[in-house]
Amino acid sequence: MQVLKERILREGRNLGRGILKVDSFINHQVDPQLMVDVGRELARRFASFNVTKVLTAEISGIAPALTTALALGVPIVYARKTRPITMTNGTYRQTAPSHTKGKTVELMVSVEFLGPGDRVLIVDDFLATGRTIEALVRIVEMSGATLVGIGTVIEKAFEGGRERLSHLGVPIESLVVITDMSDGRIIFAE
Amino acid sequence: MQVLKERILREGRNLGRGILKVDSFINHQVDPQLMVDVGRELARRFASFNVTKVLTAEISGIAPALTTALALGVPIVYARKTRPITMTNGTYRQTAPSHTKGKTVELMVSVEFLGPGDRVLIVDDFLATGRTIEALVRIVEMSGATLVGIGTVIEKAFEGGRERLSHLGVPIESLVVITDMSDGRIIFAE
Repeated sequence: MQVLKERILREGRNLGRGILKVDSFINHQVDPQLMVDVGRELARRFASFNVTKVLTAEISGIAPALTTALALGVPIVYARKTRPITMTNGTYRQTAPSHTKGKTVELMVSVEFLGPGDRVLIVDDFLATGRTIEALVRIVEMSGATLVGIGTVIEKAFEGGRERLSHLGVPIESLVVITDMSDGRIIFAE
Repeated sequence: MQVLKERILREGRNLGRGILKVDSFINHQVDPQLMVDVGRELARRFASFNVTKVLTAEISGIAPALTTALALGVPIVYARKTRPITMTNGTYRQTAPSHTKGKTVELMVSVEFLGPGDRVLIVDDFLATGRTIEALVRIVEMSGATLVGIGTVIEKAFEGGRERLSHLGVPIESLVVITDMSDGRIIFAE
């Protein structure tokens, strides 16, 4: 996705240790039209998979997941990291270590919103180590739903997420793939 | 907004103590098309205010704020409640008591994304006590930006938020207003 590459090169900042700052257009300030374009492209790639729900994790997955779900015409469910008082029924719960938060986070999805009839596309802003997405996959499995694919906006290929998730046997689509962030660079896959 | 009223009556649940559960379409599972309609309507009501940024607080404000910003053609900024490692520059910080979390939360906005040139529309899912929105207003004031209005999806009129915010002298628009949730009821304003 060329427009995304250009935006990363223009506004993204390599903070070292594999950390990419894209908070001017993805995860603090957000460009809504770019998110709509991102959602349309992810939806296009999974158009033939009969997706019934898009699943993501709060917080920064919400924007691209919402626009993907909009383009697919299905609901989005975002896993909560803290239990709101309105979450009164049973939940599927899994934990994942968070790279950017420096601690373990819990992910919770109400049993009401995911079940055996669902065909789930997981969407997140980043594919890095894949551990957050792995926790979402376990939630899909707990619910009896079928995982049909994984879509992310930016993949950091050098953090091994794709390898970690490859045993799932579902397509993994990332709109841009970064292969190298050493020495302050941001190198994209061809 | 009739479609929203009907949805609340059909799927919303009054949990008592003024707590409205709408997590099947607003704040856990989200109906993306409804959010687009919500965003269009809020944008319509503030179309003449020359808004340059939509500001909200994570988490459940993100969806309606994103779609409002999309309709207005401006960026959205969501205040963070925990500092991500990519938030490296200065921040505007305020605290607010959270009704639904039962504790005080901190709201942080990077100084890069709000400044004296901005005309800010604050959008959130609920207008209840108004304390979260009040913290966002203080962030707008810290930045030197101009607050032009406040838009929310659901107002619980009996919690006094509108009175708390009225001294600001800006329009406050809510798409539905609930006047009474006592005895298990959900009563809308005419």
